Amino acid sequence: MINKLTIIGVGLIGGSLARALKHAGACKEIVGSGRDAVHLQKAVALGVIDRYEVSLSAAVQDADMVVLAMPVGATETVLRQIKPALAPHVIVTDAGSAKASVIEAARAVFGEVPANFVPGHPIAGTEQSGVEASFAELFQNRRVVLTPLAHTSADAIRQVRAMWEQAGAEVMEMDAARHDAVLAATSHLPHLLAYALVDTLARMESHDDIFRFAAGGFRDFTRIAASDPVMWRDICLANRDAILSVLERFSADLEQLRAAISADDGARILDVFTRAKHERDQFNG
Amino acid sequence: MINKLTIIGVGLIGGSLARALKHAGACKEIVGSGRDAVHLQKAVALGVIDRYEVSLSAAVQDADMVVLAMPVGATETVLRQIKPALAPHVIVTDAGSAKASVIEAARAVFGEVPANFVPGHPIAGTEQSGVEASFAELFQNRRVVLTPLAHTSADAIRQVRAMWEQAGAEVMEMDAARHDAVLAATSHLPHLLAYALVDTLARMESHDDIFRFAAGGFRDFTRIAASDPVMWRDICLANRDAILSVLERFSADLEQLRAAISADDGARILDVFTRAKHERDQFNG
Repeated sequence: MINKLTIIGVGLIGGSLARALKHAGACKEIVGSGRDAVHLQKAVALGVIDRYEVSLSAAVQDADMVVLAMPVGATETVLRQIKPALAPHVIVTDAGSAKASVIEAARAVFGEVPANFVPGHPIAGTEQSGVEASFAELFQNRRVVLTPLAHTSADAIRQVRAMWEQAGAEVMEMDAARHDAVLAATSHLPHLLAYALVDTLARMESHDDIFRFAAGGFRDFTRIAASDPVMWRDICLANRDAILSVLERFSADLEQLRAAISADDGARILDVFTRAKHERDQFNG
Repeated sequence: MINKLTIIGVGLIGGSLARALKHAGACKEIVGSGRDAVHLQKAVALGVIDRYEVSLSAAVQDADMVVLAMPVGATETVLRQIKPALAPHVIVTDAGSAKASVIEAARAVFGEVPANFVPGHPIAGTEQSGVEASFAELFQNRRVVLTPLAHTSADAIRQVRAMWEQAGAEVMEMDAARHDAVLAATSHLPHLLAYALVDTLARMESHDDIFRFAAGGFRDFTRIAASDPVMWRDICLANRDAILSVLERFSADLEQLRAAISADDGARILDVFTRAKHERDQFNG
């Protein structure tokens, strides 16, 4: 049982975690914090959090556990703000989609990453954002990756793990660099491509027709382009190197495919499509 | 009422059209044809078609309407094979995703595109293929685009339109070049990107992790990479120029986004993402 859980950033992820933990009876009190009081009032009105504090110091005071769930680019600023009010025993974890940059931010603020800081990332979400979109089942059967350091407290890891498990997730540990490379490939690059495609099409002359004749495949393919732009800008900056690395591979492969189409090289096109279909079918099954 | 409808290629599209028209009581007899007798037997067993002919000439004999629903790359070969058996009054239409190449194929075979040939494209489908995946509701509230020529028979257009309307679709007419440009943007390019992405990731060393940690966004984004590789190879070849044109724009835009990430230019990244989200939200609504 967590006596006081503080969630900084009560949006889709923070709000869903709060709902799931309330549902599980895992916390005595859930306090929200963030920059926008109106937003926090809504979270209280929706029953997602018990109360809120606009002041970060007040929010983390006497907390057992603090979860950072705002856009990842704000990590260093938020850590700097809560540091003076943070008792040494308080466990801090986060939900950022890029882990090396979060570790760097903690190091910048604390000198060394505190033993009670457990970097984490729930691999869950929808293209929606905001507390209105949160729901208790978001983490059911989803993976949460923790990327602790060698000196991270085993007890802190255990408690963060227990929290996510109570929210329904399967928790695993991974090296931060590996996490960032995998997420760059499976999540960050697809978001980039979806945003870029929709923007390219939006700026074409035949723009109206284009969206008029888009069908189901396009709808699914571009759904993630409706995701929160600030959150995804932050992820692009926070995980820059891993994203650029996988983007470079992808661009080279896409160029090869372009060359094959340009050369009417059906065999090469079929090769790529067949390999991809095979892989995608396995992923499904 | 169509006395005898012949569908060449009884897969997802041809099979769904047959089911929908049966359901609507729009045909006296639906005859399937194609290269694979086992597949056609299955279509009969499933009640999708009334009977089949492996011989294309036999299949189109005495037909009122012939629908070409095999991969678009086979259009010229199929037209050449049915030509001797095709009575002049028979209406021929197709379901190919690229229209200029179909018109070219008809011109190559017949010298001039026959007045009774109505190029068409139902903008509907799933990532599944084959007659087992077909269902009567596939065209409900979906658009079918016809791209007739100036000399195409008004009566042939009317009859093809009526057929698709009986299958539940909304039918519209459009210039073939415009159709090809719009579809390159909304359908062909997304398929290319999805295939290319899955193939890129499949060939990375961390390949197992990558697919293990892929979540819902990735699932939706790559769903179309499970589409039939032969059908999509054909589309890439058939609509090459329009695809290369929109791919070129996209690649240039993606390169700009890459440069912005590389330069930590958050404002430029946010700009693209915000525009894209705005556009995608409108599309949804």
